[in-house]
Amino acid sequence: MFEINHRVQFYETDLMGIVHHANYLRLFEEARVAWGQSCNLIDWTRPETASDFTVLSTEVRHIKPSRFGDNLRIQLQVKMQGVRVVFEYKMWNEQELIAECRTTHVRVDQAMKVQRPTHFLLAQVEKEKWNETWLLNL
Amino acid sequence: MFEINHRVQFYETDLMGIVHHANYLRLFEEARVAWGQSCNLIDWTRPETASDFTVLSTEVRHIKPSRFGDNLRIQLQVKMQGVRVVFEYKMWNEQELIAECRTTHVRVDQAMKVQRPTHFLLAQVEKEKWNETWLLNL
Amino acid sequence: MFEINHRVQFYETDLMGIVHHANYLRLFEEARVAWGQSCNLIDWTRPETASDFTVLSTEVRHIKPSRFGDNLRIQLQVKMQGVRVVFEYKMWNEQELIAECRTTHVRVDQAMKVQRPTHFLLAQVEKEKWNETWLLNL
Amino acid sequence: MFEINHRVQFYETDLMGIVHHANYLRLFEEARVAWGQSCNLIDWTRPETASDFTVLSTEVRHIKPSRFGDNLRIQLQVKMQGVRVVFEYKMWNEQELIAECRTTHVRVDQAMKVQRPTHFLLAQVEKEKWNETWLLNL
Repeated sequence: MFEINHRVQFYETDLMGIVHHANYLRLFEEARVAWGQSCNLIDWTRPETASDFTVLSTEVRHIKPSRFGDNLRIQLQVKMQGVRVVFEYKMWNEQELIAECRTTHVRVDQAMKVQRPTHFLLAQVEKEKWNETWLLNL
Repeated sequence: MFEINHRVQFYETDLMGIVHHANYLRLFEEARVAWGQSCNLIDWTRPETASDFTVLSTEVRHIKPSRFGDNLRIQLQVKMQGVRVVFEYKMWNEQELIAECRTTHVRVDQAMKVQRPTHFLLAQVEKEKWNETWLLNL
Repeated sequence: MFEINHRVQFYETDLMGIVHHANYLRLFEEARVAWGQSCNLIDWTRPETASDFTVLSTEVRHIKPSRFGDNLRIQLQVKMQGVRVVFEYKMWNEQELIAECRTTHVRVDQAMKVQRPTHFLLAQVEKEKWNETWLLNL
Repeated sequence: MFEINHRVQFYETDLMGIVHHANYLRLFEEARVAWGQSCNLIDWTRPETASDFTVLSTEVRHIKPSRFGDNLRIQLQVKMQGVRVVFEYKMWNEQELIAECRTTHVRVDQAMKVQRPTHFLLAQVEKEKWNETWLLNL
């Protein structure tokens, strides 16, 4: 299963002393981009490839907070659903599940109109395993 | 209906030239805090009052992107659901609906344990109108 | 003197309970962009006009912290220095000076190469008053 | 010489397609905190240790932009100057120097009043090498 690590930075906290909830979407993006890069779907030298993953919707469920210095682990799975790419994520702090997330994405052109996914995207996502009941809280 | 305005800042955009999706949660928070402040539930001089609205879950549906300089309007409604406070939001760019959101919140103590909502919170939320079918896309 | 107001948001704080120092550059940008827009140097419908103000350097001096809910006031002055545009800023919390800042900017082309300022920019900045000893701490 | 790596994230870019200048202060903080943690001056389990490094001033000089996916390297040196801790930083993209920075810090108490540095801090900083002419552009 694809996963990344992320050390919580001071600048990611808020006055409650925990990671601000908006930053979770950044961390899930960090995992998604790393996955996209690992299978050549996102090419850092052609940032327009990011528009193959334009965000249509996000859902996050928080279970425990995370704090400055925590060494988080983020796992993901991915599948197609029509023209949409669906990602699901689990965030772990050591052995503890602290958040779950689902995001959906579509490919858009420069005018932000929805496009069919590329054959290459379909081929890459096809290789991925998907477990329909993986998320427990979303 | 409670609403705020927000002018999109340069620093809220990303390399696709649109507002980064994580920033939407910040803008919905901006509306929620303004509402909380308007009815004395959030007191800026006692920032610990923010922990009455600890984020449990978020859902966002993007309909159109927003861009640098856009003058956004964010509306919200709020209700209780057990110990949870539920907020729903619509974001408008001029006359166009560009995003919808739902967030749920609980009161926590300093150890982040869930607490019953205060009587004052219950009384304030009771005064609010709620339309069960207000959101069209979530 | 040109000035803007900014209400400190919850998401701008960090675990010390104060506005995170990186966010000050965002607030000074907010003032700079508002000024640029007020004299038609920055056009929200043509975001590429922002590249007339590509950041070359920043200096910030913090005097007092700011906190959630503070109603900040940011003033600025601007002058040319060769091909550079120089901005100076004061940030006030009520009657108290809490930060000073200086930023310098150049116009760049799409390859990020420095360009001469436009005649229109020169003409607009010429109209501005500049007080060489306005900043007290930088 | 102490250094860290940082992969530029999508969410760190702006509509010019480059890392937003405010994010540089976050990356320099990331280096400073990693250094503080490496010599036990910053303890993630006691986040109040961060107030030993309350930001007094920042200066950044940008030489080249950085972009999505860049693998940055940030080096730092540190010394005392009276009650202040001074950090200097160089940011590299591969072999190219892209930014320099200087930040100064003081220890504050809960009322944000300046305190003398701790003996432990003085002892740790004493061990560090400092090169007065290391920065070339600031």
